[in-house]
Amino acid sequence: MLENIGRHCIIGQNVEVGENVKLGHNCIVEDDVKLKDNVFIDNNVIIRRGAEIGKNSYIGSNCIIGEYQIVTCGDRKNMLPHLTIGENALIRSGSILYGGSSVGDNFQTGHQVTIRESSSIGNHVSIGTLSDIQGHCVIGNYVNMHSNVHIGQESLIDDYVWIFPYVVLTNDPTPPSDYLQGVHVYPFAIIATGSVILPGIQVAGDSLVAAGAVVTKNVQEFEVVGGNPAKKISDVRNIRNKITGEDAYPWRFHFSRRMPWEDMGYMEWVNSLGDDEKKLFSIKE
Amino acid sequence: MLENIGRHCIIGQNVEVGENVKLGHNCIVEDDVKLKDNVFIDNNVIIRRGAEIGKNSYIGSNCIIGEYQIVTCGDRKNMLPHLTIGENALIRSGSILYGGSSVGDNFQTGHQVTIRESSSIGNHVSIGTLSDIQGHCVIGNYVNMHSNVHIGQESLIDDYVWIFPYVVLTNDPTPPSDYLQGVHVYPFAIIATGSVILPGIQVAGDSLVAAGAVVTKNVQEFEVVGGNPAKKISDVRNIRNKITGEDAYPWRFHFSRRMPWEDMGYMEWVNSLGDDEKKLFSIKE
Amino acid sequence: MLENIGRHCIIGQNVEVGENVKLGHNCIVEDDVKLKDNVFIDNNVIIRRGAEIGKNSYIGSNCIIGEYQIVTCGDRKNMLPHLTIGENALIRSGSILYGGSSVGDNFQTGHQVTIRESSSIGNHVSIGTLSDIQGHCVIGNYVNMHSNVHIGQESLIDDYVWIFPYVVLTNDPTPPSDYLQGVHVYPFAIIATGSVILPGIQVAGDSLVAAGAVVTKNVQEFEVVGGNPAKKISDVRNIRNKITGEDAYPWRFHFSRRMPWEDMGYMEWVNSLGDDEKKLFSIKE
Repeated sequence: MLENIGRHCIIGQNVEVGENVKLGHNCIVEDDVKLKDNVFIDNNVIIRRGAEIGKNSYIGSNCIIGEYQIVTCGDRKNMLPHLTIGENALIRSGSILYGGSSVGDNFQTGHQVTIRESSSIGNHVSIGTLSDIQGHCVIGNYVNMHSNVHIGQESLIDDYVWIFPYVVLTNDPTPPSDYLQGVHVYPFAIIATGSVILPGIQVAGDSLVAAGAVVTKNVQEFEVVGGNPAKKISDVRNIRNKITGEDAYPWRFHFSRRMPWEDMGYMEWVNSLGDDEKKLFSIKE
Repeated sequence: MLENIGRHCIIGQNVEVGENVKLGHNCIVEDDVKLKDNVFIDNNVIIRRGAEIGKNSYIGSNCIIGEYQIVTCGDRKNMLPHLTIGENALIRSGSILYGGSSVGDNFQTGHQVTIRESSSIGNHVSIGTLSDIQGHCVIGNYVNMHSNVHIGQESLIDDYVWIFPYVVLTNDPTPPSDYLQGVHVYPFAIIATGSVILPGIQVAGDSLVAAGAVVTKNVQEFEVVGGNPAKKISDVRNIRNKITGEDAYPWRFHFSRRMPWEDMGYMEWVNSLGDDEKKLFSIKE
Repeated sequence: MLENIGRHCIIGQNVEVGENVKLGHNCIVEDDVKLKDNVFIDNNVIIRRGAEIGKNSYIGSNCIIGEYQIVTCGDRKNMLPHLTIGENALIRSGSILYGGSSVGDNFQTGHQVTIRESSSIGNHVSIGTLSDIQGHCVIGNYVNMHSNVHIGQESLIDDYVWIFPYVVLTNDPTPPSDYLQGVHVYPFAIIATGSVILPGIQVAGDSLVAAGAVVTKNVQEFEVVGGNPAKKISDVRNIRNKITGEDAYPWRFHFSRRMPWEDMGYMEWVNSLGDDEKKLFSIKE
């Protein structure tokens, strides 16, 4: 079945391969891996035992997919559940995804991304170069993280959240300790570059954490907070786009790339939803 | 022509190889690549189609040179122009350079550096470990970036600029949006560790952004700015070297390593220039 | 002697191999390497000339162990002393450790860690994903660094120190210059997420640098400092654990995972020490 395969590849037992799968050179595919139709694995990729990669997905060179959690040297008996990656993934070179997580459809990563075990990642999520998802997190749908974001364990990130470079979501109020409290970021919130969010903080929907903020208190809906420690400095509804002069927020009315309303605009998309969902997404422009 | 070659290498069609080129083990060199005289490629390197590497250059293990921009799974038909790297490059292991950029002579990188497409990088540039150049940037000559610097798209970095670890140049005034405004850093400016420069900001020549600054307003010549938000805190000409007690700035009078005035000092170098250039570089000590 | 070896491995001359050593696929082991009993080398690992790996150690896929310092293209004649790694190391995939350093027993790293040359690292040290140890550092025993920590050259980190994500220890008071002054972090100090420590600063024992601090003055024992620039904001002995309501500091009374007092508690451990050592570790709860 695997006809389009590079040189020096090593393929384990019981590997399931769909139609039109392509494998680059020097790949290592361990036992029980499942590669669905049209999967394209680039060079030097390692796919660990039992990992499942959805159709039309691309795995960049030097990636490790389904990495083992190494508790003690060589102990691979008490393995995590397998990694499952949905359809249409685009995982760029050098990334490491652990076993024991599930990733939805239309997933994208930059380079050298690390995603540890026991994470649940929804559909249409993008995680930038060098980002480090520490595991034991829940990440919703249509979440966008830019480069070099650090998501501590126990973080909860809702749908339609934006997180920009060098943001850290922390989790230990009195480090070092064994008592972790994750950050919760609500739908449509935006956390700008270089902000640190303290443990257990709630960042409410449609809020904006300004660049470089150190957030020590909960952020309310529509608030703009900034500074160290962060204080309320504005309301998102007061912010204009510098170039167009128009309102910039709530951003869902002004930005649609890779969003479900990409082809029709936000309000038309909301109006196309069922009544229950419509309530969830209703908001004054 | 390629006599000094490791084991398990895969060499494409129409590869041009100069004198005394050395290739490590497990390398993949795709079609139409050009390796000039004395190029040394270490182990496990992938060189994508058409990339050109200047003479006397070293490419560290596990690098990917001329990486494809992957728009859709497996689509490599609408490829970017090739990557061109000048002479005497030293690219350390684990770095990923995209196609569609040009890099001058005497280029150095640390490890795990990412440089995206459509970047123009001058001569004598050094980019530290884990730095992430997002593409669509212009970087001049004799620019030094330390580890873990993030250069957003549309950034413009002039000659003789220094950028220290964990600095981020941002580009979106109202994230998320489609309206980007890059940062412009002028000649001889210094941006110290952990600073965030807001979109569209101009950092003037010979200024110093202090460590941890969040820069929300343009920085003037010779200013020292610091804090969150950053304010003027001094003038560089008031700063002494703690150890020698001498003036520390303008730095060009006090630091010459890897600069064109390395062997003669700054003023003698300026005096050796033609009249037009001399004007550009004249400054009171 | 090397019976458990993957495919496509390349083994140099004079390699010493202990009992029960396992090598994955595509590994490159250069001349004079020493692999002690029960060492497990995963796939695609490069082990440079003369590196020595202690027994029961695990080296993750794609690591480079004993990397060369590349001064000029292809010059490997004036090599550094070899890298020595102690027993029970767990070095996760994608990490790069230079030659010319020594690493003690029970060492752990995350992924994509870089450790440059001329570093001395004690026993029971853990260094998180993407951390960047710049070399010419001294790191004691039982030091824990989380992800994405940057340790500048000339840093001195004592035993039992905790450093959290995105912390940078800087070293150049007037950048760029040739006059470096490293940071000194004393025993039991804690530096929380995203802090920048200015050059030459002393962070005293049992102090706590709060998240996002920019530390421009020495930190005293038991002080909590925070802000930009950092000021004293509390005393660690005033901080309670949010969840248990108990004192959180000095942390050695409340946290024991992977510490020498893990099985008995701090005071019992101190009481088990000899008289001289007991003095060193005595402290009021």
